[in-house]
Amino acid sequence: MSQYRVLIDANDEKGLVHKVSTVFYQNSFNILTNSEFVDSENNKFFMRSVVEGDMPLDELYQSIVSVMPPSANIDVIAPKNKNIVIMATKEMHALGDILVRHEAGELEANILCVISNYAELGSFVEKFNIPFIEISHVGLDRQEHEEKIIDTLAKFDNIDYIVLAKYMRILTPKFVEIYENRVINIHHSFLPAFIGANPYKQAYERGVKIIGATSHFVNNNLDEGPIIAQEVIHVNHANGWRDMQRMGKDVEKIVLSRALRLALEDRIFVYANKTVIF
Amino acid sequence: MSQYRVLIDANDEKGLVHKVSTVFYQNSFNILTNSEFVDSENNKFFMRSVVEGDMPLDELYQSIVSVMPPSANIDVIAPKNKNIVIMATKEMHALGDILVRHEAGELEANILCVISNYAELGSFVEKFNIPFIEISHVGLDRQEHEEKIIDTLAKFDNIDYIVLAKYMRILTPKFVEIYENRVINIHHSFLPAFIGANPYKQAYERGVKIIGATSHFVNNNLDEGPIIAQEVIHVNHANGWRDMQRMGKDVEKIVLSRALRLALEDRIFVYANKTVIF
Amino acid sequence: MSQYRVLIDANDEKGLVHKVSTVFYQNSFNILTNSEFVDSENNKFFMRSVVEGDMPLDELYQSIVSVMPPSANIDVIAPKNKNIVIMATKEMHALGDILVRHEAGELEANILCVISNYAELGSFVEKFNIPFIEISHVGLDRQEHEEKIIDTLAKFDNIDYIVLAKYMRILTPKFVEIYENRVINIHHSFLPAFIGANPYKQAYERGVKIIGATSHFVNNNLDEGPIIAQEVIHVNHANGWRDMQRMGKDVEKIVLSRALRLALEDRIFVYANKTVIF
Amino acid sequence: MSQYRVLIDANDEKGLVHKVSTVFYQNSFNILTNSEFVDSENNKFFMRSVVEGDMPLDELYQSIVSVMPPSANIDVIAPKNKNIVIMATKEMHALGDILVRHEAGELEANILCVISNYAELGSFVEKFNIPFIEISHVGLDRQEHEEKIIDTLAKFDNIDYIVLAKYMRILTPKFVEIYENRVINIHHSFLPAFIGANPYKQAYERGVKIIGATSHFVNNNLDEGPIIAQEVIHVNHANGWRDMQRMGKDVEKIVLSRALRLALEDRIFVYANKTVIF
Repeated sequence: MSQYRVLIDANDEKGLVHKVSTVFYQNSFNILTNSEFVDSENNKFFMRSVVEGDMPLDELYQSIVSVMPPSANIDVIAPKNKNIVIMATKEMHALGDILVRHEAGELEANILCVISNYAELGSFVEKFNIPFIEISHVGLDRQEHEEKIIDTLAKFDNIDYIVLAKYMRILTPKFVEIYENRVINIHHSFLPAFIGANPYKQAYERGVKIIGATSHFVNNNLDEGPIIAQEVIHVNHANGWRDMQRMGKDVEKIVLSRALRLALEDRIFVYANKTVIF
Repeated sequence: MSQYRVLIDANDEKGLVHKVSTVFYQNSFNILTNSEFVDSENNKFFMRSVVEGDMPLDELYQSIVSVMPPSANIDVIAPKNKNIVIMATKEMHALGDILVRHEAGELEANILCVISNYAELGSFVEKFNIPFIEISHVGLDRQEHEEKIIDTLAKFDNIDYIVLAKYMRILTPKFVEIYENRVINIHHSFLPAFIGANPYKQAYERGVKIIGATSHFVNNNLDEGPIIAQEVIHVNHANGWRDMQRMGKDVEKIVLSRALRLALEDRIFVYANKTVIF
Repeated sequence: MSQYRVLIDANDEKGLVHKVSTVFYQNSFNILTNSEFVDSENNKFFMRSVVEGDMPLDELYQSIVSVMPPSANIDVIAPKNKNIVIMATKEMHALGDILVRHEAGELEANILCVISNYAELGSFVEKFNIPFIEISHVGLDRQEHEEKIIDTLAKFDNIDYIVLAKYMRILTPKFVEIYENRVINIHHSFLPAFIGANPYKQAYERGVKIIGATSHFVNNNLDEGPIIAQEVIHVNHANGWRDMQRMGKDVEKIVLSRALRLALEDRIFVYANKTVIF
Repeated sequence: MSQYRVLIDANDEKGLVHKVSTVFYQNSFNILTNSEFVDSENNKFFMRSVVEGDMPLDELYQSIVSVMPPSANIDVIAPKNKNIVIMATKEMHALGDILVRHEAGELEANILCVISNYAELGSFVEKFNIPFIEISHVGLDRQEHEEKIIDTLAKFDNIDYIVLAKYMRILTPKFVEIYENRVINIHHSFLPAFIGANPYKQAYERGVKIIGATSHFVNNNLDEGPIIAQEVIHVNHANGWRDMQRMGKDVEKIVLSRALRLALEDRIFVYANKTVIF
């Protein structure tokens, strides 16, 4: 018996559930979980099923394709560890959270390498027997630096996701295009919110009573990609901005790891710059 | 076009989704929302669909019955205001929250009456043009008092739900049996937790850092019925038990109203002393 | 024995706590609660004490003035119900929450009247035996309309706070100046966030996973006054913007009532467009 | 200039704040933060001040002793890294969170060693250059095993706190007595709640909608020591108990690290089996 994750999005029309569930039924699949959502404003249908059966993956895929409208996007995935690359700069909290989870066997992921524009995190990463690649930006312009990263990434086959674990540089449209909806960022703020270099300082100066963090896919507009997960924490007047930064780190790492998990389990659909998460 | 809520629970077997969705498809129903859950440990299947179509309710019901296994429980419901009775004692916060929501048109409910074992809330309830019925327990034993309540309730046709909005007396098994899974209580504690008369005092003395409230259906074991909704709030050492009681009231009213809303929208399945909520 | 709330803010310097506590000690006051905060960046000192003793209020005030630096703001307050006016438009949830709390005796407040620019809420407010004053804006420009409100408010003595319980019109600088740091608003969004007419729709379109509400004092920049309280609630892709609006109402009413309570208990200091809350 | 943390608890009486603040003032200390709390039911006074000045620690201590009543407990502490020992069994998440924070320089702590009754975590701990000591319980009764731990701990000077990071064995009264109010545990449940071996399974079977974790000092009654920190997370019917266990881990590690931080910063008073936390 094999287990598959079936993901379908399509323009909504009558009979989609009927048609897919008929495929499952006629081929003796068990449905373990099944989630559907219709965005009636945009007339879009989303479905994620986890099924168990004897049919080979390709046959199941073809069977579904044959009953779905041509506009449908269909994915049939056999669960296995996905390949991820982590990019970081100097901060350890978000990176460390992922490395410990990986070490504890919590993540469906192979970490191919960690890339940083500084050397600081090298010895930490290597404790976990994961390759650390420093690609310094010193003396390079943004494009030159990024070309070096793109070249490095190109040496790895089948990168499923790139995780920006507090990678503090902006990616160019070229990079974003190559890895569309596959670059997961953690934004150190509750989006939409304080844009810019030190959101905790801005939050402090505005006197907010809650701070937060947002994980999102990266698109060409800084901090405006589809949101995957958000979380917040209460603060008060006695918390200076350095306190907020420290408290924010706890939120950041939890939110980024939660988003990564959703991605690894194939639970995220992206459309209209938003996510549907099952 | 009519809108129906279709609720099905059954022993799980292959093809259930297929069979129901075939009924919808062949009778030209639009599926507005569709939620399914399989408890694989207990081999139980749950499904709630909201559909839109031209078929009369009875025909849709019969069509579904004809394809489902005999063990299945099937409900097809046309959304309309449900009839509720509220029972209270002296406290105003949970009752008031429901009355204001009703007045604001937020609830799919007709409030048939408010019953209390004291007179205190009478003038408040009557502001809202809702009948207030005092049924004093003074001089009566538990059974005599409750018989009077049961007799009063019997005068109302079609009571869908009874809401205990801080009704501070224990119901007998007889009452619970008559209105099984239709009596919604708010428990002034985070269940499982401090059982008894003054949970906030107990919480204070235990030095907890979080307090909560739990809404549940009433069964024969006090505070042990199926949980519908829970919420919590952070407290600290400076909060005495009267503070906790006051803060708890805000949680209680929100949780009870949330549970009531779920019931009114036919979103709750009960099984194995638990709830499935779509 | 009388109870007083003593509020002091001053430029920080050595000995402030010593000097005030010496006044309390020498005049045989019990200190019930005592909170202090120093914003060392801005060199500002804040203190709120609740004390109990036999000295008349004026004498205590003068004793404190005599030991504090001339720059200090000193307030000695005997707890009593404060006078508030509520302004609303058509929505019932935030207004209703305050009216029920008032009716239940939860608030240290006299509600002098409810003012609205529409008639809709009149019969609801009058259930609570509170004067309802409709001041329609129809046919008036912003300034003319507001002059009528200001004239109406001028007939009431000693208004401590004006609560904007979903009052959907912008106040002019003149109004704000008269009632500086005394107008409490509830903003239907997590500030800083979606500014404008329908933040829930914007939040939905942005695909956020959390929505919130913010209560703040009103200043001349729309939605930019000092924040008193904030709260959030998780949402998901299945929540359309009308769901978010409905869920947001629950957050709005809780946050506004929380902010009002803080104000009534003299727990808020305002400075640098922020609040210190004890 | 030296910075000190001054902690005082005493039976409440008039003038305590006055007397301490006079010491600070007369010796030219700056007060950086000052927190006080009076539990008027139990007539207990608590105070924590962070002050800056030129006086040696011992002199400040003696000056405060000389003005406080004999019943007072007085502590004057110069901030420095505290010595901690971590005890664990096989699970990595709570331990790993502390090790990464330590590595990132977030904790005011030296980790003297990690002790486990199994070998599993050894290579993980040694990555961080921290001694790992396996003390197997195999073939030993509870007392024999614990004697070996006590002997091992005795070799370290000045252990400030022992952190039970999912150490799955019960400590004897003897152990608890030696390290009274210095053993910090993480309980895999929201106390008071499901006691016993698999609280997540119990929570699942009870159908709760929220799960939590509690960090507390260990006393002789299992899970009944003074609570330091608690946190919760929402769950639903679709979360099986293994999901709850996984989700619970995230809460556990955050709560334990939060409690540890409070201890390291000398922010916790214990009395009446409760904590006061500044």
